[in-house]
Amino acid sequence: MEIIRQFFQHMGDLLSIPWTFVILELIGTLAGAVSGARLSAAKNFDLFGAFIVGTATAVGGGTTRDLLIGKTPFWLEDSIYLMTCLFGLVWVIVFRKWLVRQNNTWFLFDCIGFSLFNVIGIEKALGLGFPTWAAICLGVITGAGGGVLRDILINEVPLIFRKEIYATCCLAGGIVYIICLHYLDWRPEGSAVLSCTVAIAIRLLAVKYSWGLPTLKAEE
Amino acid sequence: MEIIRQFFQHMGDLLSIPWTFVILELIGTLAGAVSGARLSAAKNFDLFGAFIVGTATAVGGGTTRDLLIGKTPFWLEDSIYLMTCLFGLVWVIVFRKWLVRQNNTWFLFDCIGFSLFNVIGIEKALGLGFPTWAAICLGVITGAGGGVLRDILINEVPLIFRKEIYATCCLAGGIVYIICLHYLDWRPEGSAVLSCTVAIAIRLLAVKYSWGLPTLKAEE
Amino acid sequence: MEIIRQFFQHMGDLLSIPWTFVILELIGTLAGAVSGARLSAAKNFDLFGAFIVGTATAVGGGTTRDLLIGKTPFWLEDSIYLMTCLFGLVWVIVFRKWLVRQNNTWFLFDCIGFSLFNVIGIEKALGLGFPTWAAICLGVITGAGGGVLRDILINEVPLIFRKEIYATCCLAGGIVYIICLHYLDWRPEGSAVLSCTVAIAIRLLAVKYSWGLPTLKAEE
Repeated sequence: MEIIRQFFQHMGDLLSIPWTFVILELIGTLAGAVSGARLSAAKNFDLFGAFIVGTATAVGGGTTRDLLIGKTPFWLEDSIYLMTCLFGLVWVIVFRKWLVRQNNTWFLFDCIGFSLFNVIGIEKALGLGFPTWAAICLGVITGAGGGVLRDILINEVPLIFRKEIYATCCLAGGIVYIICLHYLDWRPEGSAVLSCTVAIAIRLLAVKYSWGLPTLKAEE
Repeated sequence: MEIIRQFFQHMGDLLSIPWTFVILELIGTLAGAVSGARLSAAKNFDLFGAFIVGTATAVGGGTTRDLLIGKTPFWLEDSIYLMTCLFGLVWVIVFRKWLVRQNNTWFLFDCIGFSLFNVIGIEKALGLGFPTWAAICLGVITGAGGGVLRDILINEVPLIFRKEIYATCCLAGGIVYIICLHYLDWRPEGSAVLSCTVAIAIRLLAVKYSWGLPTLKAEE
Repeated sequence: MEIIRQFFQHMGDLLSIPWTFVILELIGTLAGAVSGARLSAAKNFDLFGAFIVGTATAVGGGTTRDLLIGKTPFWLEDSIYLMTCLFGLVWVIVFRKWLVRQNNTWFLFDCIGFSLFNVIGIEKALGLGFPTWAAICLGVITGAGGGVLRDILINEVPLIFRKEIYATCCLAGGIVYIICLHYLDWRPEGSAVLSCTVAIAIRLLAVKYSWGLPTLKAEE
């Protein structure tokens, strides 16, 4: 265990964020890859297609953010992200029959993912000098962009535009993060924990009580 | 009114283009956002989906251009663009029942938008030292890219590939702009006015007389 | 002939790659443009739509790579690529009735294209200091990305996720290229020839014997 801890510690030093964050980020990446691969399986994609769709789901939001802010996509700078996506694909192949029973776990991991990606996106944008409102937008793109890219690749209308509300959760989490960080002068770690808690809580409540945003009514 | 004029003047100074252009650009942005939100309503998207599709329609062409030429997307540098898209969404919600009656106005605003975005794209590319032919391409991408991105997001075949000819109008407007600017030595303002007039005129004639580009015949 | 050779020689000097490579690259570009235009015709697109889809097929992979590595897209720096795509469109219009009979030729040209684009992508990534694994990924994106973009634009599920295996061929070709270049210390030209030969051979065998990657089975 000590070796594993040191491995992640070392990685965290490289990324200059604490190692618990790195583990949580990889859990979120894994959840995205598994989600993409499962939807690919439903469309009879081959292994390559499932890997691409899984990877796009996992790293698509962060890649869009990095392109918009003019940085090299994060997954091209450290092979751990693609290896995590590959591991997610292997998991889907091996545990195919048990995946439905793991649904609650994957939902939790997915929640960790989108809420943490949101904070990472905001932090990265603030670090480059973007104004607060732009950082919140880039957080939403980081948290919710992967699912949109996945749905474009499998040729479906993006789920997030009709049913899921996790973009709204990202927005709420982003506002909480900025308030904690800028107005309450909290440290980034504490702000991130509260931001993720709020975002995940709203999503859990939304699923439990079938909350959704109002639908735009069509014209007569 | 003087205050509003000064506000746009100030913004124009920031962007180093005259304030009438800024107003027209925002009118075009608004038309894009309304167009995207209306199509989203027809697909039963929720408010978030309608906002994203509206925004993608309005700023998608310019964002594609900025990514291609290696600049930070323009809407991340000034919040007025996202605010305009939000205003467009509110308009669609509030005036839902009257939108059909406003069709001519929105068509006019849309014409202002695509023809002006075209000129802005060309001007930005020329300013970065791209050759004339590349600037014209980037103008077409700026003017017509938003509609393509919108259709990808709502999972439809892009309308512009089958029916609308506004890419051709952009091309004509772009050639007029370059001729006025480089060969007739006109000032950018005058060149832009003639370019937009030509592009809009062709589109109006195309709609009136049902002009379209020839369809590519399928093989036997 | 000498004049044509000198023209390509000059272009090759500009790109600092030998002129035979430039010819082969343009043949691959042409194959992509023809493939995109033919699929557009099947969808009743107009000439503009066919040009855009053809161009996206031909240069989409390289453009995605250039955006990811932070470079100006290659086709904005030399008009020869867009001219080749235009020529491909004209070819499809003029030789519409004979295209089916040319199928073997276009398949061969397409093979030259994807395998060479793969090597070009790897070479460009290595030149910018990306690690070997990232260069191989960027090679696959360069070789296979155009087809994915084409299928998104014509609103189909990407063929490469279900049937075609040329991404796998790119991967194999990329590994061969890296082994030749880095471990056997071959010159880039020889490594490229072997890489393309391996990639094309696998694809030919795959088509002949109906090889495909395993499909991911859907959950019960």
